[in-house]
Amino acid sequence: MSEQKLPTRAEDFNEWYNQLVLRAELADYAPVRGCMIVRPYGWALWENIQAALDRRFKATGHLNAAFPMLIPKSFLEREASHVEGFSPELAVVTIGGNKELEEPLVVRPTSETVIGHAYAKWIQSYRDLPVLINQWCSVVRWELRTKLFLRTLEFFWQEGHTAHATFEEAEAETRQMLDVYTDFAVNEAALPVIPGIKSESERFAGADRTYSIEAMMGDGKALQAGTSHNLGQNFAKAFDIQFLDRDGERKFCWTTSWGMSTRIVGAIIMVHGDDQGLVLPPRLAPFQVVIVPIHKNDDERAAVLEAADGLRRELAAAGLRVKLDTRDGLTPGFKFNDWEMRGVPLRVEVGPKDVAKGTVVLARRDRPGKEGKAFVAREGLATTVAATLDDIQAALLAKATAFRDANIHDAPTYEAFKQAIETGFARVWWDGDADLERQIKEETKATLRCIPLEQPGESGTCFMTGRPAKAQAIFARAY
Amino acid sequence: MSEQKLPTRAEDFNEWYNQLVLRAELADYAPVRGCMIVRPYGWALWENIQAALDRRFKATGHLNAAFPMLIPKSFLEREASHVEGFSPELAVVTIGGNKELEEPLVVRPTSETVIGHAYAKWIQSYRDLPVLINQWCSVVRWELRTKLFLRTLEFFWQEGHTAHATFEEAEAETRQMLDVYTDFAVNEAALPVIPGIKSESERFAGADRTYSIEAMMGDGKALQAGTSHNLGQNFAKAFDIQFLDRDGERKFCWTTSWGMSTRIVGAIIMVHGDDQGLVLPPRLAPFQVVIVPIHKNDDERAAVLEAADGLRRELAAAGLRVKLDTRDGLTPGFKFNDWEMRGVPLRVEVGPKDVAKGTVVLARRDRPGKEGKAFVAREGLATTVAATLDDIQAALLAKATAFRDANIHDAPTYEAFKQAIETGFARVWWDGDADLERQIKEETKATLRCIPLEQPGESGTCFMTGRPAKAQAIFARAY
Repeated sequence: MSEQKLPTRAEDFNEWYNQLVLRAELADYAPVRGCMIVRPYGWALWENIQAALDRRFKATGHLNAAFPMLIPKSFLEREASHVEGFSPELAVVTIGGNKELEEPLVVRPTSETVIGHAYAKWIQSYRDLPVLINQWCSVVRWELRTKLFLRTLEFFWQEGHTAHATFEEAEAETRQMLDVYTDFAVNEAALPVIPGIKSESERFAGADRTYSIEAMMGDGKALQAGTSHNLGQNFAKAFDIQFLDRDGERKFCWTTSWGMSTRIVGAIIMVHGDDQGLVLPPRLAPFQVVIVPIHKNDDERAAVLEAADGLRRELAAAGLRVKLDTRDGLTPGFKFNDWEMRGVPLRVEVGPKDVAKGTVVLARRDRPGKEGKAFVAREGLATTVAATLDDIQAALLAKATAFRDANIHDAPTYEAFKQAIETGFARVWWDGDADLERQIKEETKATLRCIPLEQPGESGTCFMTGRPAKAQAIFARAY
Repeated sequence: MSEQKLPTRAEDFNEWYNQLVLRAELADYAPVRGCMIVRPYGWALWENIQAALDRRFKATGHLNAAFPMLIPKSFLEREASHVEGFSPELAVVTIGGNKELEEPLVVRPTSETVIGHAYAKWIQSYRDLPVLINQWCSVVRWELRTKLFLRTLEFFWQEGHTAHATFEEAEAETRQMLDVYTDFAVNEAALPVIPGIKSESERFAGADRTYSIEAMMGDGKALQAGTSHNLGQNFAKAFDIQFLDRDGERKFCWTTSWGMSTRIVGAIIMVHGDDQGLVLPPRLAPFQVVIVPIHKNDDERAAVLEAADGLRRELAAAGLRVKLDTRDGLTPGFKFNDWEMRGVPLRVEVGPKDVAKGTVVLARRDRPGKEGKAFVAREGLATTVAATLDDIQAALLAKATAFRDANIHDAPTYEAFKQAIETGFARVWWDGDADLERQIKEETKATLRCIPLEQPGESGTCFMTGRPAKAQAIFARAY
């Protein structure tokens, strides 16, 4: 890490983000344009995200599997809107083993097609249903404008693919997984997301209904942080996924798919980060606590390091993810800045006076400066630290929620709408159609993020058409 | 699962394997020739393998990361023997986003090149060393003759890539990771592998030294189950990975790489499997215990299911991976066969008499028939089960070790050698060269598997050249 300062978010949010990702060593650019290397610190964060999601997937009865990354190009063409949506973004393998291939293969942009093909083979009877499978993998979409974590040519994600006997079951699954994403976002990532349904024009290519969770970034823009699709019978018909029902009739299955990707890392950065760098929610942070020993000479050094290592062992034994920074030749101040840049939620400082007095200094990442510093007793430190981490987790969610709520503006008119989207989300009564959405997007760059599931329970007047509207929609500029 | 029997191993080992993989639902064929779908049961096994390896990697100081799957084709050409080894096997992306690419990209067959490129950027000083990184991913090699798990176009693996300041450190790392693989194979997979060094002709393309662990399959053939390479300064020079040393001089790093793949699943199948199907080592089995309730009518059913579910909870609470088979409409006999096919190490049978008497029946997968059945007390079942699983784990290793040792034959002559490799491994005194190896391979299809690290500590006469030889080598036909 260089000692140069980050640009502030107010100066240049975009550049603040780009530099932060590199300097916190979360990710780096790959030699192929638009691809990313996720560095160990970023991958450790992703592994914690994976574990928190995977636990929830398994608790709701899903099993992991692995489907191939290479898909015959013709597979994508079987579902009309799917191919229309994905064909501009494909990476195509035309040569294998030094020979031109008879049929080109695509590197999966998503796996509905190849998984649909397998399900058609595996599913025979209602007894085989539901099929509830998830896979963790990477996918490739040929993006032109890329940004680390947010939009990369190759990205890492999970994709769930399920098959059911009825529409109702498929819809219940789609909604359940949206709830799982919401629960993860709120309770693990401290992201106060808005779950809702997409308009037709923002739907996944091939879906009947797309739900998403939408988060507000630190600059007021929106980021779609997870999606859950009810695919109806579209893929079942394209891939002939049929089953013999209880009544003796052969029927097409109803399928769903749902995904969350490394974009969520970008959301965590842009929601919680500050001008000093990253701020990680304790539940997902690779290191929840860093211990920085402070000493001026060799005598002090030995005593302080011994005490610090004792603390490390104690915190680790309590199940906390703790790092003791024993690097030589770096000042405590440099180390403070370094770990602040990397967003470690809590710092423990131990110096010779602390050792003598049986105290340590705790410094909270979410409250920089004196306000977040406290002298606490060495005794019972694991309990104090655990409680402080819980408090930080809650404080991050509260802060992000307050920021979001302060920046959602009800917009009764197009003028108010245009003002709202300059700083945050516009919440409007909506009775428009796809053409109107397109016009708004062209004129303002804002898109319909979702119709929130939670509605005020009344009705209003559409801010554009002036017609009565049953539901409110959220519009925003988005990543 | 169909009720049709597997071919026996004696009848047709190859067909026994192929059918077993499909019928135990470990994997299936993908639409693209040579690719594989790893089904949930197979992936759960792989997840347990991953966890056991990952624990060991982290305990030895390695961090996980993710490097991109797409690599500029020119990268492979920078290391002469590397490109020679891999260029016939490449899958090449020539089209991206509907446009012909200026430079074709290969789907990684292995990642030394792209990781070397990153290391050159990240490593500046001796303070940055060692770099110890691993990644879990899939790679693609255009294989012509494929077989599920053993040799597939795309396969899943981990690849560790490290950089060091000296040859000695790189060699120590290479050997350490070979030890890690050996420890995993023996103590988790119950595979009595032989660690050794490869001859020049069997080395990884670009390595100075390749070490491997070699396992003997149930048909006496060899399978390379993991490799660890000392890459010398070959990749450091090709990718300019330099560091400023303590003495103020710029030097090239010394690098290593090491990998274990889904091939290991094939090894587990072919070493432990029997004519009834899969036999899984308890430490890696997705389900260590299956409970099959036995009941004839509804009254019995309720009481038996309640007791069985109590057992399930008790075993799960003790940290065991347990499955209660409540499927309706299937006979206990069908369920026994089904779980035997899937290799669950231990079956618990609970019927009405057992409920009344406070007993259950335990049936060991590794000892089919009456010999492996025992009535045991319901009380303290978790302890009995845990002890029995330990015993099964040890018994599998002992059995495989006895089989291996009975099928390694010392071969003082070429005639004895030819006979030895018909049923197992030939152990010979060896002073030959690459030409002689090639001749032997052409005449017998046997290859030099490794020069074992453990040597008798004497010397002998080379079975081919008649010259004095310092070391023994293992030859075998191999997968």
